[in-house]
Amino acid sequence: MRLATYCRAGQESWGAVIHEAGEDRLVDLAHIAPSLKCAIEQNALASVALEGLPTLSLQKVTWLPPIAAPEKILCIGVNYANRNAEYKDGSDAPTKPSVFIRFPDSFTGHGEPLIRPPESRQLDYEGEIVVVIGKGGRRIPRERAFEHIAGLTIMNEGTLRDWVRHAKFNVTQGKNFDRSGAMGPWLVSADEFTPEALRDMRVTTRVNGEVRQDDTTASMMFPMDFIIEYLSTFCALKPGDVIATGTPNGAGARFDPPRYLVPGDEVEVEVQGVGTLCNGVADEEL
Amino acid sequence: MRLATYCRAGQESWGAVIHEAGEDRLVDLAHIAPSLKCAIEQNALASVALEGLPTLSLQKVTWLPPIAAPEKILCIGVNYANRNAEYKDGSDAPTKPSVFIRFPDSFTGHGEPLIRPPESRQLDYEGEIVVVIGKGGRRIPRERAFEHIAGLTIMNEGTLRDWVRHAKFNVTQGKNFDRSGAMGPWLVSADEFTPEALRDMRVTTRVNGEVRQDDTTASMMFPMDFIIEYLSTFCALKPGDVIATGTPNGAGARFDPPRYLVPGDEVEVEVQGVGTLCNGVADEEL
Repeated sequence: MRLATYCRAGQESWGAVIHEAGEDRLVDLAHIAPSLKCAIEQNALASVALEGLPTLSLQKVTWLPPIAAPEKILCIGVNYANRNAEYKDGSDAPTKPSVFIRFPDSFTGHGEPLIRPPESRQLDYEGEIVVVIGKGGRRIPRERAFEHIAGLTIMNEGTLRDWVRHAKFNVTQGKNFDRSGAMGPWLVSADEFTPEALRDMRVTTRVNGEVRQDDTTASMMFPMDFIIEYLSTFCALKPGDVIATGTPNGAGARFDPPRYLVPGDEVEVEVQGVGTLCNGVADEEL
Repeated sequence: MRLATYCRAGQESWGAVIHEAGEDRLVDLAHIAPSLKCAIEQNALASVALEGLPTLSLQKVTWLPPIAAPEKILCIGVNYANRNAEYKDGSDAPTKPSVFIRFPDSFTGHGEPLIRPPESRQLDYEGEIVVVIGKGGRRIPRERAFEHIAGLTIMNEGTLRDWVRHAKFNVTQGKNFDRSGAMGPWLVSADEFTPEALRDMRVTTRVNGEVRQDDTTASMMFPMDFIIEYLSTFCALKPGDVIATGTPNGAGARFDPPRYLVPGDEVEVEVQGVGTLCNGVADEEL
């Protein structure tokens, strides 16, 4: 099932996206729980019945990130094997993943522009596959990780490159400009995947139709089940927590000269079995 | 006013700590707002009247972090000038602060033990002064920063040193073990400070009575008003957001050999004009 959070007639709600008579339409599910995150917390997704419910047009909908206010958004840096080589610092492949954090306000929804702030000309894309936690847990063993996934969504982990290296350690600043990234369009529930499928799933990023990033999770140094085990070692994962699993090589900063995003660009991140997250780019209105 | 969040008879609440007949007692303020964070959001603190309200003993109270669920906990690394020298990497003083993020669950309250997990023997203390945001804002100019402070509290920014350097970038893991740090005992509202007082305020950390850290905010490379301006450049600060302003030199890791915390230790962080945050240390019960 595809599950989305959206705003319609000024009202935030959530529901299922279904394919009906040749087009995608929406079935509102606010009667089940006040938000998709609450529905995950209440383990209410498995019993959702869509039959007989009215369907709505997607025309007048503003998409929001599928989980509106996750308690945690944990991001894995440098995960695809060939990305470590991109750093050209001669270091061996890491044995532990780099982890950083983004706040919910750093994301917009599908169809909304990524915002380039006046403080930087280095807005860059990073296409990523996102795991949303279903059943919470601490010290989740790798072999049980799949049971803790509510579903998958897509992230454009938009980054202000010059602000990432403001200090010796930590990338926080360049990863947290308000609305510099995007998530969506929807969460595809875990019952649509096998554990095997997650181990070789393609993610592709296109800018104005040109492929810039293209790889599969088979290249990950730290696969999803490892990540869930590792992160839950230090903190309890909770329903609705968001884990961005890293980006393939080919971000704009890696070109010579760099190819940063500019207003008017269209960025698509496509993930096999999930969908395509599309965003324009706009300068911030001050 | 000293404002605390606590658990009493199994119920989470908040209130003011007053001095009455030679002892500290509590005035519950749950009738004003459901939480201290909500009271800050509603700008309800200025009009709080304590007269005539019943006072409660502090004996049966479990202290919680003053802001139970901040949207953001932003932490400044390497701020006291002599700390950059401690790193002994020959680098010049930084021109921008290092920023990392902690999650709410990484803190316990005053009087509760810091938890040493089985995965590390390197639990370390970091005494810090904490700014809690009152009025939210984006791109807050430095000269107006003081108006955005709801009050100050104290943090023991407990750190698992070996987990801080698991990867090339970012300290996330070693800063986010559940209950490895502490905040409290209370928030002292901003009306008890002048902007000048914030520029030379002492913070002292003692372990089992021995002074380990002792410095004043006059040594900060990035004073509080600069930090508020800088952080609000990339993200909107909101009521109840927590900013840890960095720790003086003298953490356990800086001794040779290092002096990490062990079960039974007592750590006190005292901040001039705020109070003293006291925590024991215990091994995690699995």
